[in-house]
Amino acid sequence: MSANHSQQLIDAPRFASLTPLIEPRSVAVIGASSDPTRIGGRPIAYMLRHGYAGQILPVNPNRAEIQGLPAFASVAELPQAPDVAIVAVPAPQVLETVRALGRQGARSAIVFSSGFSEVGEAGAAMQDAVVAAAREHGMRLLGPNALGAFNSNLGYYAFFSTSLERGVPLPGRVGIATQSGAYGAHLLGMARQRRLGTPICVATGNEADVTLGDSIGWLVESPEIDVVMAYAESIRNVDSFLAALEAAHRAGKPVILHKVGRSALGSRAALSHTASLAGDDKVLDAVLGDYAVIRARTTEELMDIAYLATRRIYPVGNSLGMITVSGGAGIIVSDVAEEVGLPMPPMPDMAQERLKARLSFASPINPVDCTAQALNDLTLVRDFTESMVVDGGYRSLLAFFTQAGTAASIGARLAEQFRRIKEAHPERLFVVSVMGEGEELAPYEEAGFALFEDPTRAVVAIQAMGRLGEAFARPLRLRRPAGGLQLPASTPGEAEAKRLLARAGIESAAEAVLGSAEEAVAFAEGIGYPVVLKLASADIQHKSEIGGVLLGVSDADAVRAGFQLLLRRAAEKAPQARLDGVLVARQLQGGVECFMGIQRDPLFGPVALFGLGGIFVEVLQDVVFRRCPFEVDEAEAMIRSIRGAPLLFGARGRPRADVAALARLLSNLSRFAWEAGERLRSVDLNPVIALPEGQGAWAVDAVLEVEEVADGARS
Amino acid sequence: MSANHSQQLIDAPRFASLTPLIEPRSVAVIGASSDPTRIGGRPIAYMLRHGYAGQILPVNPNRAEIQGLPAFASVAELPQAPDVAIVAVPAPQVLETVRALGRQGARSAIVFSSGFSEVGEAGAAMQDAVVAAAREHGMRLLGPNALGAFNSNLGYYAFFSTSLERGVPLPGRVGIATQSGAYGAHLLGMARQRRLGTPICVATGNEADVTLGDSIGWLVESPEIDVVMAYAESIRNVDSFLAALEAAHRAGKPVILHKVGRSALGSRAALSHTASLAGDDKVLDAVLGDYAVIRARTTEELMDIAYLATRRIYPVGNSLGMITVSGGAGIIVSDVAEEVGLPMPPMPDMAQERLKARLSFASPINPVDCTAQALNDLTLVRDFTESMVVDGGYRSLLAFFTQAGTAASIGARLAEQFRRIKEAHPERLFVVSVMGEGEELAPYEEAGFALFEDPTRAVVAIQAMGRLGEAFARPLRLRRPAGGLQLPASTPGEAEAKRLLARAGIESAAEAVLGSAEEAVAFAEGIGYPVVLKLASADIQHKSEIGGVLLGVSDADAVRAGFQLLLRRAAEKAPQARLDGVLVARQLQGGVECFMGIQRDPLFGPVALFGLGGIFVEVLQDVVFRRCPFEVDEAEAMIRSIRGAPLLFGARGRPRADVAALARLLSNLSRFAWEAGERLRSVDLNPVIALPEGQGAWAVDAVLEVEEVADGARS
Repeated sequence: MSANHSQQLIDAPRFASLTPLIEPRSVAVIGASSDPTRIGGRPIAYMLRHGYAGQILPVNPNRAEIQGLPAFASVAELPQAPDVAIVAVPAPQVLETVRALGRQGARSAIVFSSGFSEVGEAGAAMQDAVVAAAREHGMRLLGPNALGAFNSNLGYYAFFSTSLERGVPLPGRVGIATQSGAYGAHLLGMARQRRLGTPICVATGNEADVTLGDSIGWLVESPEIDVVMAYAESIRNVDSFLAALEAAHRAGKPVILHKVGRSALGSRAALSHTASLAGDDKVLDAVLGDYAVIRARTTEELMDIAYLATRRIYPVGNSLGMITVSGGAGIIVSDVAEEVGLPMPPMPDMAQERLKARLSFASPINPVDCTAQALNDLTLVRDFTESMVVDGGYRSLLAFFTQAGTAASIGARLAEQFRRIKEAHPERLFVVSVMGEGEELAPYEEAGFALFEDPTRAVVAIQAMGRLGEAFARPLRLRRPAGGLQLPASTPGEAEAKRLLARAGIESAAEAVLGSAEEAVAFAEGIGYPVVLKLASADIQHKSEIGGVLLGVSDADAVRAGFQLLLRRAAEKAPQARLDGVLVARQLQGGVECFMGIQRDPLFGPVALFGLGGIFVEVLQDVVFRRCPFEVDEAEAMIRSIRGAPLLFGARGRPRADVAALARLLSNLSRFAWEAGERLRSVDLNPVIALPEGQGAWAVDAVLEVEEVADGARS
Repeated sequence: MSANHSQQLIDAPRFASLTPLIEPRSVAVIGASSDPTRIGGRPIAYMLRHGYAGQILPVNPNRAEIQGLPAFASVAELPQAPDVAIVAVPAPQVLETVRALGRQGARSAIVFSSGFSEVGEAGAAMQDAVVAAAREHGMRLLGPNALGAFNSNLGYYAFFSTSLERGVPLPGRVGIATQSGAYGAHLLGMARQRRLGTPICVATGNEADVTLGDSIGWLVESPEIDVVMAYAESIRNVDSFLAALEAAHRAGKPVILHKVGRSALGSRAALSHTASLAGDDKVLDAVLGDYAVIRARTTEELMDIAYLATRRIYPVGNSLGMITVSGGAGIIVSDVAEEVGLPMPPMPDMAQERLKARLSFASPINPVDCTAQALNDLTLVRDFTESMVVDGGYRSLLAFFTQAGTAASIGARLAEQFRRIKEAHPERLFVVSVMGEGEELAPYEEAGFALFEDPTRAVVAIQAMGRLGEAFARPLRLRRPAGGLQLPASTPGEAEAKRLLARAGIESAAEAVLGSAEEAVAFAEGIGYPVVLKLASADIQHKSEIGGVLLGVSDADAVRAGFQLLLRRAAEKAPQARLDGVLVARQLQGGVECFMGIQRDPLFGPVALFGLGGIFVEVLQDVVFRRCPFEVDEAEAMIRSIRGAPLLFGARGRPRADVAALARLLSNLSRFAWEAGERLRSVDLNPVIALPEGQGAWAVDAVLEVEEVADGARS
């Protein structure tokens, strides 16, 4: 579990143990082949072709020489302990090979071989044995069933994809961590087309030892990497994943994550009737929200955002100014900017007037349309753009010049105008949208501009840079270890659940469990009518299903009648249940009905849910998630983020609800869940009534499920 | 207004009057220049370079020869009446030029000149005069302020964009209609990069005469065009726009529309308190829903969908089968398919077993992952793919082979396998996703495959083909002329409004307006308690604001007290209002509160709105729109489409509501609005109570606003 990972925050690199896998000084190849098209031959051929400066040590029992290098008959005969050993032998020989490598002192291994956990039980057992052997000798192990790793800065290619035949990655500072080999190779191809330099890549395969998180962590700690692209199908180890995201935040390096498909992230078991609401992706998104991670929706978006991130400009308080030769493109960009929430405030009035005076056809608001006229006098473009930077103060600028921007007569001169402005304002993010190929783009690339042919894709990436800026500016909140709180030995009844919650600052409305009708009447007279009557029994969880809840009980006679009715119903519908009596509570009126709960996510631990009551949760699934624990300000941000939030803020002539109290309650609940530790399965506070401002927010019903223990002590 | 356009449906081409603009046999150029870089010189240079076979007739008072062609000193000296005349003279000379062209018998003109309605009042007046002159002589006029038109099938370029310097469009069958010249040129560049042939393009500029709709209409009627891409900033003429969409549907040709920005489509004036809900874009989308139009969200999507549409395969009952060498790509595609609503059913069990037997590593469900293994024996790929076509029965197939699909050793052979399957099943839509450039792609392109590098973009386009298939299969419902119904001379009171609506089949619950408390009691006793009491007065529109509505009035005494209370409130809060009495109605219990209304859209006429009541409409804006009139089945589809629909279909243990009655009511309302004609400003039925199945749906309150007429007769 992730409980303790924040304790491991230290300044020293946490992921240094992967260094032999990614920056080795020597590479043994077990199952080395003379044929450069075979899996055991390709890495050697690639390394020879691209000038790997370390030692390559081929192991092959049948040959004295492999691709011109002296070969060794067995692992035992290796003349030195290699930093890394590529294992390209049939699956049944892998275990013995890894043992031999361990004995030889190899620091790490990359197992290309398939036939392990991906093919079933027997393979999984074999995989476990392989990992155990590696660990016994202190070796890190990548794979099995892994495409491998490469570091083209060193000419090191422990990687058997044929995609490298088309050329090695361009120089650059983007690292790739991928769970899928085949899709990883596709990413490499996409990156090359996008002119994105990805010199270091780790494909993790079955992740028996080295995980995606480890790989991301090593990459963000590397001085040669600025940005990490990651492709994930499932997060298999949450500790290393979150530790890597913390390391990334600390290093000020963004992780652009393409997490696809359904996974084991969410709560699969129906822990309570709201369990199905805890969707995998919402939980993951809630977790990612704490870090400097952007989740890309498509591969193109992954490329776009990583590409723009290589400028290393992450504006805080991002805003977009656009200069364009096409009003149409301006509208398109404005539409998308609004959609993704990137502000495009207008230019100041004075500046607008000045620009209008310079060029009467121009539209000087923002987007600033300088029209094709300005192409006849590029000082106009310069002055307009400069005014946007200086007067407009936009953190990000987008210049749309499409084919005109690469016209032979214009391109280089236009790029030069922009370059001067960019150099005078290096803190601004400056994106150029022009259409062209090869040499036509060179003046912009040489000046360091990020280039997007499609301006709408640029907008999405620019917005992401602002989110990264905010994330880096926000300190990471570290989580204390969980488990300080004692839970009862088994699922408690409502009254006990409420007492437990009350001690954690989660207050219910005034109420009492009473044994007789007359006691109930006396209590009701004290708190005032109307009241709610409920069966009190630990054995009846969902009381309304058996008619065990009476609302709007309005006087003493009704309390008496209701008391008897509930007892009758209990006797009929739940004859086995032990009754504690009848709970009498003040019925809260004029408030907004909300829902709060805790779900236990198998990976990320307790996750808090919040929504408005009834249809909002159950029909519209208008629910927000957040990993526990969190503070009041974060709780309030959750509350504000649901679609139905206006109902809490005075929509339709209602009074504003006591959102501050609601946020306190939610934060307290998150802390309670965190302290309660792993035995807490779920909490449902449904409904919670948020009364008008200043009057508080109260849990009306509370269901708390705990894992039963044989020897647990009651708290 | 659009009222009568459906009357003009005839088999003859409706848009033939644009033919001289787009397929001219002769082109005069007024303001012709010898300089091929000037606006008056470019079209001539382009036409000469690309072999325009018709006559080019330059007009220039100062030169006897222009670019090697004999020139004429004035329009009057032209030796013949040209099919089209390009007008490239300063704005003040345009009117006289057009008049001269008219006198000369020119059939059409394209006015490049700017300085008209786009620069203000004076320009607009000049523009009106120019159009009047053209119409007087029966000329069609494109522009002013238009980039022009071209038809590269004829080598005809009445188009002054420099983008043509980079090469003319590729041959093909996609037409472009665009309101923006600059963005139109950008589209041409994008199309060329996408290898999309766009031989005919019309850029409409100010649309003084020829509109975007006219241009789309001409293109869909052209035998040389299969698909139309359109770019719109605002729909300026609804008649021609809808007529073009009808023509497109009739011709079985799709229109891919990129409509950007905010426009005059929606109802801007606050006609009633729900007016702000009638968002421009929702109304447009509702209108487009009737036709074979896909609205693209971005320029890339516009290209992608138009590109795929050129295969002319529009599957009805679309479904996607994917064969892949990467499990990761399979997950990515499944995610997107689910998001856009493209079904990916699994392969039949028998077929799965057979495939698994052929290749044990394969995942045979769908996506079918044949793994890189299959690349060693391409007959495996063939058999797998064939099984997906034959056994799986998918209407659309996507093959993801990324770089492997273009590897020198594999590309041509793989393409050949696919080609055979495609030729045996020409009705299936077959998309290949490979990565490569130029010659690498040739085997697939020659075999006629649609190619997408990014598989997720392919999914979006494939889904669009299915929507087109459904749209073509659905007959267009033609609208009868509106205006058969007599409205009162001014906004009626609630009772009269309900009488009017009742005659149109929009029933309210049992109710009566009564003048005395005792009459009210007698009526209430007849219909049963509880009842609702409301002030009845044509002068008080929103009664609840002055406390003029009492709910849950439960016995005779309460009716008496309530009656007096309402009269007191009326006297206090609305002393000027004429009272008709108090309306007594049965309070409907146990139903679902809905909202229905009519808004008058300035372009598309009456639009019906439907939503659930209260917060659903006002906070969540969970509202659906549709242009009036429509049938019951369409009304039911609207009702099903809102997010809150489960509440009507038995969510949370409620009884199912009488959706059939609700749909009848909504359809009747749409018909009422249509018949009522232009004087009907709005209708609010709020709430409408949908009772449990079989018990009907009833309007409880009705507000109907009509435009006042001095001499109107009461209906």
